[in-house]
Amino acid sequence: MGETLDRHRRIFGERAPLFYDEPLELIRGEGVWLLDAHGRRYLDAYNNVPCVGHANPRVVAAVSEQMATLQVHSRYVHGVVVDYAERLAALHADPLSSLVFACSGTEADEIAMSMARLTTGNRGFITTEAAYHGNNSDVGRLNDIGGRASVGKPVDPEVRGVPLPDGSRRFVEGVAAAIRSLDEAGIGVAGVLMCSILANEGLPPLADGEMAEVAELVHAAGGLMIADEVQAGFARSGRWWGYEFSGFEPDIAVMGKPMGAGVPFSGVVAAPDVVDRFRSSTRYFNTFAATPVQAAAGMAVIDVIEDEGLLAQTTQVGRHLADGLRGLGITDRLGEVRNVGLFVGADWLDADGAPDGQGARAVVNAARHAGVLIGLDGPHGHVLKLRPPLVFSAADADQLLEIIAAVFASAT
Amino acid sequence: MGETLDRHRRIFGERAPLFYDEPLELIRGEGVWLLDAHGRRYLDAYNNVPCVGHANPRVVAAVSEQMATLQVHSRYVHGVVVDYAERLAALHADPLSSLVFACSGTEADEIAMSMARLTTGNRGFITTEAAYHGNNSDVGRLNDIGGRASVGKPVDPEVRGVPLPDGSRRFVEGVAAAIRSLDEAGIGVAGVLMCSILANEGLPPLADGEMAEVAELVHAAGGLMIADEVQAGFARSGRWWGYEFSGFEPDIAVMGKPMGAGVPFSGVVAAPDVVDRFRSSTRYFNTFAATPVQAAAGMAVIDVIEDEGLLAQTTQVGRHLADGLRGLGITDRLGEVRNVGLFVGADWLDADGAPDGQGARAVVNAARHAGVLIGLDGPHGHVLKLRPPLVFSAADADQLLEIIAAVFASAT
Repeated sequence: MGETLDRHRRIFGERAPLFYDEPLELIRGEGVWLLDAHGRRYLDAYNNVPCVGHANPRVVAAVSEQMATLQVHSRYVHGVVVDYAERLAALHADPLSSLVFACSGTEADEIAMSMARLTTGNRGFITTEAAYHGNNSDVGRLNDIGGRASVGKPVDPEVRGVPLPDGSRRFVEGVAAAIRSLDEAGIGVAGVLMCSILANEGLPPLADGEMAEVAELVHAAGGLMIADEVQAGFARSGRWWGYEFSGFEPDIAVMGKPMGAGVPFSGVVAAPDVVDRFRSSTRYFNTFAATPVQAAAGMAVIDVIEDEGLLAQTTQVGRHLADGLRGLGITDRLGEVRNVGLFVGADWLDADGAPDGQGARAVVNAARHAGVLIGLDGPHGHVLKLRPPLVFSAADADQLLEIIAAVFASAT
Repeated sequence: MGETLDRHRRIFGERAPLFYDEPLELIRGEGVWLLDAHGRRYLDAYNNVPCVGHANPRVVAAVSEQMATLQVHSRYVHGVVVDYAERLAALHADPLSSLVFACSGTEADEIAMSMARLTTGNRGFITTEAAYHGNNSDVGRLNDIGGRASVGKPVDPEVRGVPLPDGSRRFVEGVAAAIRSLDEAGIGVAGVLMCSILANEGLPPLADGEMAEVAELVHAAGGLMIADEVQAGFARSGRWWGYEFSGFEPDIAVMGKPMGAGVPFSGVVAAPDVVDRFRSSTRYFNTFAATPVQAAAGMAVIDVIEDEGLLAQTTQVGRHLADGLRGLGITDRLGEVRNVGLFVGADWLDADGAPDGQGARAVVNAARHAGVLIGLDGPHGHVLKLRPPLVFSAADADQLLEIIAAVFASAT
C-alpha cells in the first residue's frame, strides 16, 4: 500500500482528497463488503453510489451487455434510453414528467438552477447555511454559506443561506427573511434548492409540514422549489424520493449518485414546460448523457430495488440500526441519533456536551481500523454518517453495532 | 422507429437535440458500423467517442471485468487508477505530469480555467470567435462569441474572441489585441483556451508556428496556454496530442471524449505546482472520477491505439480520405478540403462560391440516407465534418468515398 499511496500522491498531488488518516487501498467489492490490498475486509456503511451493493451481478450484466451492444450519444434515438426515462419519470408525482439527463450531480443541479431562472425570470437562490450541492462555479455558490470555509469569501448577492431546522421556527422564518431580502434587493427568488432530507447538514430534524411550508413560501414569492435528491433519492429514505419522506411537492427534482450504480449518471425531472423552456433557451447537449449504458445501469438499479423489496428493507434496517446505536448506552459522548430510512446521523459530543468534530474524526478513523467504514457530516463535522448500500441487512447492522460499540468504548 | 421517436420527444421534450431531419434509432454498433432499428447499416464517419471502434472487445472486457471487481470513488486509493494516471501523464511532455480527473469535457475545461485564474491571479480568457468548449455557465462564456447565437447576448467583460486563422496575420494579431484589451481593462490574461487543432472552427489552416507564437504572446502577458484536447487528443491528429501536431507547448492540457471510449471520463494535466494550487484552493472532489472503471476503459483505449498502430493509421487514412475527397471532381460545390490526421473538414459552397450552410445540411442528410454518417462544423455550419473512429481503414475510406461521390453528384 505504501508504494501505491506514494504514487497516488505524486500523480494527483499531496492535496488530492483521501479518506482516513491512513488511507485505504481497495481492490475488490462485493455486496456490503470491501477488500483492501492487504486482504482485509471492511463492512461498508458509507457508500451510497453502489446502492444495490458492490459489483451487483445484475448491474454488471446489464452494463457489460450494453457496452458490447451499443454506447453512443443522445443525438440518436435509443429504445433503452427512452424505456428507462419513462420508467424513471413514472416514479415521480405529476407534473414531474419530462427529463434532462447529465453525468454528475453538479451538472444536474446547474441545469435545475437554469430552469428556475428561465421559468421565473428571477436570479436569487435560497439554501441552507451548511449545504453542499456541487463542485463548479455556479452550483458552488450555494456551498457552505455559513460555515468556516465561507470566512473571507465575498458575499454572493444572489444567494441566501438559512439556519438549520432545530425544532424552533428559525428554519421557516429564515426562508421568509431570505425571500424578503432577495425581493428588497430587486433580485427576486428563482428557487429554493435544498436536499430533501438535509443530508449534508447532518439530518437536522424537520418538523411535520416544515418543507411544505417552505415550498408554499417560495411559490408565493414566484420561485420554484427544487428538491436535491442526489443523496435523498432512490429508496434511501424508505420512499423512492426524499421529498415524499419529508412531505412536499417540488417543481424540479435533481437525481444523481446511486442512479447508475457507479456509472456516472444524473438527471433532472420537471414539468414539460419547464424542460422545454430550458431546452429552447440553452440548446443543452451532453456528450456523455443520456446514453444506452447509463440507461441499462439505471434500469438494473430500479429492478433490484423493486425485486428485492429494498424500500421496505431500507425502512426496517434503518430503524434497527438507529435504535441499536441509541441503545448502546456505553458512552455519554454519543448524542442524538437521527435517521431517515437507511441514512443515520449520530452526534458526537465532547465532555461538555458540545459538538466535537475532532473526536468524531477519531471515531471514524478508529472504526476504519476496526473494519467498518463510516463518514462525517454536519456544519461542525461532528455528525457520524452511516449511509450503507441499500442492500445492508439487519444482520449486517448487528455486526456493525458490535464493532462500533467497541470503537465507542475505547474512544471515550 | 416512429413510435420510439415520439416517445423520445414526449419524455425529453420537442427541443431535445437530435441529428438529421429524419432522426436515427440505433440499436447496435460494431467497429465502424452502426445498425438502426430497421436493420440498416451505416458507415460511421462521425463518432470520435468510440475511438477504438464501437463495442471494441478489449474495452468491453476491461469495463465488464472492472465493474465485476470494484467501482468506487477516489477518496480511496486504487492501483488501477494510479497505473492509468501514470501511463497517461507519460504520454505528455514535461512539465505536464500531474492530473485531475473529471467526467465531462466541460468539467475539465472549467478546472483548467480555475487553475489559470489561481496561477496567474488574472481573470481574462481568450478563445476564437467560433469556439465551443462546454455546456455550463462558466465554460459556456467562451462559446460562439462572434457567431449568430451571440447576437443580443450581453458582452462578457472577461472574455475576448479572436478571428480564425486565414493565412493572413489576423489570428495572431487578434490574440495580441485581445491581450492589450484585457490589460487595459485591468482584468489581465489568465489564459488562452483553444482547441489545439481548432476543430469546431472547421479546421482553419494554422500556419507553421502560429500557435507557438500565440503561446509566446500569452506567456509574455503573464497568462497560461491551455490546449483543449477533447477533440484533438488521443491520436486523432496522428500524434498523441493536437498540440504536438500544431507545434506548441501548453501549460495545461484538457482531455475528454474518446478518453473512456464511451465511459464518461475527462481529465486535466498540468505541472505539479499548478495542480497543487488548484487542489489547495478548491478542495475539488468528483464523486464519479477518478474511478477504477474509468481507468480500466482508459487503459484499454491506450492499449488498442498502441497495439494496433493507430497513430500511423490515422495519418495514412486521414490523408487518403482527404485526397480522395479532393479528387472527386464531380462538383464545384465542394471547396477546400482540410485534414488534421483522421479529422477532415470540407467546405460546401453555393453557386457563387460562398459558404453554404443550408446546402451542407442537405448533404449531411442525404449521406445519412445513403448510409454514411457525417456532421457539420465551422462558424457558418458549412464545413462537412468527417471524424470517424480511429480504426477506420483505407478500405472504409474507399467505401465512404464511393457513397459520398453519389451524394455530392445528386446534391449539385
